[in-house]
Amino acid sequence: MTNLAQSPVWFTDRDEDQALSLRYTGDILFDETSDFQRVRVIDTYRYGKALLIDEMFMCTEQDEFHYHEMIVHPGMLAYPDIKHVLVIGGGDGGTVRELIKHPQIETITMVEIDQTVVEASRQHLPHIAQALNHPKLNLIIGDGITYVAQGEDQTYDLVIIDGSDPVGPSKGLFSAEFYGHCDRILKPKGLLITQAESPSFHRETFVELNQCLKGIFGPSQVKILLFPIPTYPSGLWSFQVAVKGGIDLVNPDRAIVETFTAKEKLQYYNYEIHQAAFALPNYVKTMVKE
Amino acid sequence: MTNLAQSPVWFTDRDEDQALSLRYTGDILFDETSDFQRVRVIDTYRYGKALLIDEMFMCTEQDEFHYHEMIVHPGMLAYPDIKHVLVIGGGDGGTVRELIKHPQIETITMVEIDQTVVEASRQHLPHIAQALNHPKLNLIIGDGITYVAQGEDQTYDLVIIDGSDPVGPSKGLFSAEFYGHCDRILKPKGLLITQAESPSFHRETFVELNQCLKGIFGPSQVKILLFPIPTYPSGLWSFQVAVKGGIDLVNPDRAIVETFTAKEKLQYYNYEIHQAAFALPNYVKTMVKE
Repeated sequence: MTNLAQSPVWFTDRDEDQALSLRYTGDILFDETSDFQRVRVIDTYRYGKALLIDEMFMCTEQDEFHYHEMIVHPGMLAYPDIKHVLVIGGGDGGTVRELIKHPQIETITMVEIDQTVVEASRQHLPHIAQALNHPKLNLIIGDGITYVAQGEDQTYDLVIIDGSDPVGPSKGLFSAEFYGHCDRILKPKGLLITQAESPSFHRETFVELNQCLKGIFGPSQVKILLFPIPTYPSGLWSFQVAVKGGIDLVNPDRAIVETFTAKEKLQYYNYEIHQAAFALPNYVKTMVKE
Repeated sequence: MTNLAQSPVWFTDRDEDQALSLRYTGDILFDETSDFQRVRVIDTYRYGKALLIDEMFMCTEQDEFHYHEMIVHPGMLAYPDIKHVLVIGGGDGGTVRELIKHPQIETITMVEIDQTVVEASRQHLPHIAQALNHPKLNLIIGDGITYVAQGEDQTYDLVIIDGSDPVGPSKGLFSAEFYGHCDRILKPKGLLITQAESPSFHRETFVELNQCLKGIFGPSQVKILLFPIPTYPSGLWSFQVAVKGGIDLVNPDRAIVETFTAKEKLQYYNYEIHQAAFALPNYVKTMVKE
């Protein structure tokens, strides 16, 4: 597949020492600067349309399935009694799209700070945003940190923190106060799943978050999930999961998982992947003292 | 860690649509063009020294452990009777370094086509090249394809194909004729492990190799191993393993694996990772019809 006749324009997501560049058509399909950040959509040759926040890739059509399947299905299938879900962030809609696949869910409350992210996704990433009008969803544009701080005790079975890197509006999503409130608004058997960055690229944030969650939920109640995603720095990403009750996160009911995976035609997640995602490399075990 | 006062020079490994760039000191520590390829060593800020072949990252000091631990230990620990090993490629020395950690190995024959790769690694990557003078190693500079074609029947317990992408001198490492000879020179219980590219980035090569190996060794005798590596395209890489005998690749003796892993202070591999590496995402299962 030779694209040499196509556009020579590249978008680069870089930190000081490392950069990933994707070639795109040259057209900016969406470009608005909100109170919080600049939001753009471009059309890349390798990964389809990409949502950009400031100078970073947020998600692409071709590889978002890794992230959105893994932020939802391991938790939902380990604890099938989940009925009431709170999502903080998740403005592109991918997390809600995956949640909707579990019919036992009765309500999803999603609190996204930036209406512009929702608009960009609705207009240009309809496959990702497809469930943002679902009748089970109560979409609130507002500050998730305040929402959680003001939330009633023991309200949710599952809280998902689907925020971006701990800069700008997402900074407060990486604090002990915030996770203390998450613990409080979760029901006694509730589950928390949070975006936890790359264990090799964001070592400090990854470890601090792990220590924070262990301090609140207890050391044995926190697990790390790893999965690949090509357009994020290092290509290896993580979620951290905290359980309040005695749920066995690693060993769900195999038959239920396999029926679900086949029915929903998932691209990444399956029973073996569920268990494999909890296996930690030695360097990660050392970082989190496990 | 702010490096803004440091060098503004970047090295970029790109294909048509995607590129990874690493900032380095600006000095080229080694630069020789052999009969086969251009071989360079640079010193990057994030990953330490990097070996470059033509315009590609071949390995870096900071992330090579993923690759070299995974090309050796899953096979060695699934089949601890391995005594005679053949390595095709592997000029940087990382594979031999990991093999040497298994004391039951009696001989290692390594056939690397390009002396320049060995020299670059010996001079600038001593941690990777450290075992290249080991008394158990017979290092041959020559064509691995010819060597395998002329090899005696049933000579090796393990053959490792540690080559680069299927262009230039490595092209013949991805052919049915080559793997037919590998089968022939393996002992009746022998094991083959081969570098198999990225399942998402090199789909065609990955699938063709899988079909080729299944045709030679039998469909049930071929397994895929996945692992992350930040400086290769997509960040997710694979080896394919073919077994001639009835070895259970996925479930090694747990006590042996744990003793070995602890003793050798491995950075990536352990018992859980061994099993997890064989878990395939749905999109990979579909590609290889499993």
